Amino acid sequence: MELSVSDINELLTRGVAEVIIEAELRQRLAAGQPLRLKQGFDPTKPDMHIGHAVGLRKLRKFQDAGHQVVLIVGDWTAQIGDPSGRDETRPRLDAATVRSNAETYMEQFFRVVDRERTEVRWQSEWYGDFKLEQALDLAGRFTLGQMLSHETFRRRYEEGAKLTILELMYPMLQAYDSVAIQSDVEFGGTDQKFNNLAGRELMSQLGMRPQHVLLVPLIPGTDGRKMGKTFNNTVDITLPPAEMLGKIMSMSDEVLPLYFEVLTDVPLAELAAIRAAMEAGTVNPRDLKMRLAREVVSQFHSPADALAAEEAFVRQFVQRELPTDIPEYALSGPTAIIDLMVAAKLAASKGEARRLIDGGGVRVDGERVEGYDLSLDPGAGVVVQVGRRKFVRVV
Amino acid sequence: MELSVSDINELLTRGVAEVIIEAELRQRLAAGQPLRLKQGFDPTKPDMHIGHAVGLRKLRKFQDAGHQVVLIVGDWTAQIGDPSGRDETRPRLDAATVRSNAETYMEQFFRVVDRERTEVRWQSEWYGDFKLEQALDLAGRFTLGQMLSHETFRRRYEEGAKLTILELMYPMLQAYDSVAIQSDVEFGGTDQKFNNLAGRELMSQLGMRPQHVLLVPLIPGTDGRKMGKTFNNTVDITLPPAEMLGKIMSMSDEVLPLYFEVLTDVPLAELAAIRAAMEAGTVNPRDLKMRLAREVVSQFHSPADALAAEEAFVRQFVQRELPTDIPEYALSGPTAIIDLMVAAKLAASKGEARRLIDGGGVRVDGERVEGYDLSLDPGAGVVVQVGRRKFVRVV
Repeated sequence: MELSVSDINELLTRGVAEVIIEAELRQRLAAGQPLRLKQGFDPTKPDMHIGHAVGLRKLRKFQDAGHQVVLIVGDWTAQIGDPSGRDETRPRLDAATVRSNAETYMEQFFRVVDRERTEVRWQSEWYGDFKLEQALDLAGRFTLGQMLSHETFRRRYEEGAKLTILELMYPMLQAYDSVAIQSDVEFGGTDQKFNNLAGRELMSQLGMRPQHVLLVPLIPGTDGRKMGKTFNNTVDITLPPAEMLGKIMSMSDEVLPLYFEVLTDVPLAELAAIRAAMEAGTVNPRDLKMRLAREVVSQFHSPADALAAEEAFVRQFVQRELPTDIPEYALSGPTAIIDLMVAAKLAASKGEARRLIDGGGVRVDGERVEGYDLSLDPGAGVVVQVGRRKFVRVV
Repeated sequence: MELSVSDINELLTRGVAEVIIEAELRQRLAAGQPLRLKQGFDPTKPDMHIGHAVGLRKLRKFQDAGHQVVLIVGDWTAQIGDPSGRDETRPRLDAATVRSNAETYMEQFFRVVDRERTEVRWQSEWYGDFKLEQALDLAGRFTLGQMLSHETFRRRYEEGAKLTILELMYPMLQAYDSVAIQSDVEFGGTDQKFNNLAGRELMSQLGMRPQHVLLVPLIPGTDGRKMGKTFNNTVDITLPPAEMLGKIMSMSDEVLPLYFEVLTDVPLAELAAIRAAMEAGTVNPRDLKMRLAREVVSQFHSPADALAAEEAFVRQFVQRELPTDIPEYALSGPTAIIDLMVAAKLAASKGEARRLIDGGGVRVDGERVEGYDLSLDPGAGVVVQVGRRKFVRVV
């Protein structure tokens, strides 16, 4: 588990927004102590998107370096709903929904994180028997001033929006989770910073070594805004390969450097080259995006799935490029592709037709024609394309 | 249990600062329904003062009209400490202290309230088994905005003083007490209004008939400021008769009308006469105060105790009025009071001495001499006084 300085550097900086306290965590990693990595989640919405995967990939890297993930199923806090970044009090979920959501979520979680090096803990283990006395003790350890330093809370209070005392208690419960599982490092998105720091605070008050905090960036969604259910701009990791690939292909070019950094293992040097090439305009962003899409789909499905999705996408893309006024060509019986090309004047001769096919310039419904064996039937409705300009529809 | 309109009037107005909602409560009293009267207390400080007695006396009047007192021992909330009117977070008490305080408090409570018509309930009956879920449910029913409409909370928040989330939970717990015991009317001092209204709010939310609220005034203490431990200006009901009487005698004349109203049964018509006489200056406030003191001491001790205390007070008072240059008179042996008076020139003859004694004008150390049998010894050190001017000290 010996990590080199550059391994530690990559672990603590690549796809990382902030580490608290970085120098200390660096030291512990260098010392090779196995750490308990806390990752909590509220099973309020079962579907995970690739924005979540950023943190999970980071967890996986830590696991690969010998550390232990502790996954906390927030079956209690889910019933409150994390108010962070929320303008409204969330509706509360019943226990059965929470449990079923949790199962769905975990099935997705373990597509990225190593199940063997993960300890799954449900909050009900400690909150199920929690006494009022303990809750009051917790509530006595945090002040309103502290809570209103949380930007979400302060804004809602100042705007006169509804903010229940229950919501003020959310960060405390999350903080106590860190105590319950003896967290060494809590992982979260940058929007979790307040809650994670509450964990540090509580651990300190109770005489424990305060956990470190590793925050990962929130990535933009398909519309450029922060990826999340709220904006309906997510790329869910349960999407079938073709849809996942299509969504990534539809994103703006600007996301490429960040996405490569946080969602692929492209080496740092190559990352720098990609950035440089994009800035210099020496690369077609569409090709980069296809590579990115392939890498992402491979992770959540398989390389074979990614390849098939890519091919389907290209076909569909080509289809979309067809002119609207394609001339029709009627066949009287099954016709070999070479003969058709000559008859429909797509080639001057059978020889040229063969050369065009050999050169990869002939497609039927976007699919490249390989060899000369293809025969088309009357009424097939397919489009035969030669080069970029010549088309006929076989009727 | 039929109450006349004027009985109800006196019940709802004499020594009452506010009733919520008065018209409704008036109707229920007129209908003769037996009501459950909630009185909670935090056994944080075991000693009760006559300021507390104002509310207890009111409870007693309701009991005498057939209603049931439910006394809630705030063994849970005492561990938080009511933040109302407090500038600082209170220190929390341990359970043993709370229990011992509660016992002392109740012993005092039942000096005024009828034990037979009182149901004593400890908060631990419902909070002992309270689940985190229930606490969270409560916390979800109140907003920060509501809580910060409490003047104490708002001021502390705005001044940047420490205010814990625990303190914000205090009113909720007190509110839930009303649900637990199915309160019809909650009694409290005017400083309890916010907490009592939280009870109404919670009962409404849970589909119960919201309790009424009866608020009694806070009375001034020995220094004219609100009576309370904070200012060390209380008249504790456990004071021995003489001290209790002395403290009341030391109060400013202005408190008289209010004290007569809230701490005695002086009929309303007489109350009005007292006010008028004071305003017209046709009565010596000292005499009124002595009457008040006697009535108050009688309540917490007995009429005999009150009388003895009054006499001791008068003696002491007279003692204080002695001139500083009293001539000494040396005796050579035991001497009858009559002979002493003549010999010391306090009376011109034995006949005058007898007449002076018969007229009540002769005192020894402030105590009136009755009959002629008293004999004084040489070196007794006592002061013999005749009328207002003549004194000798017997040596």
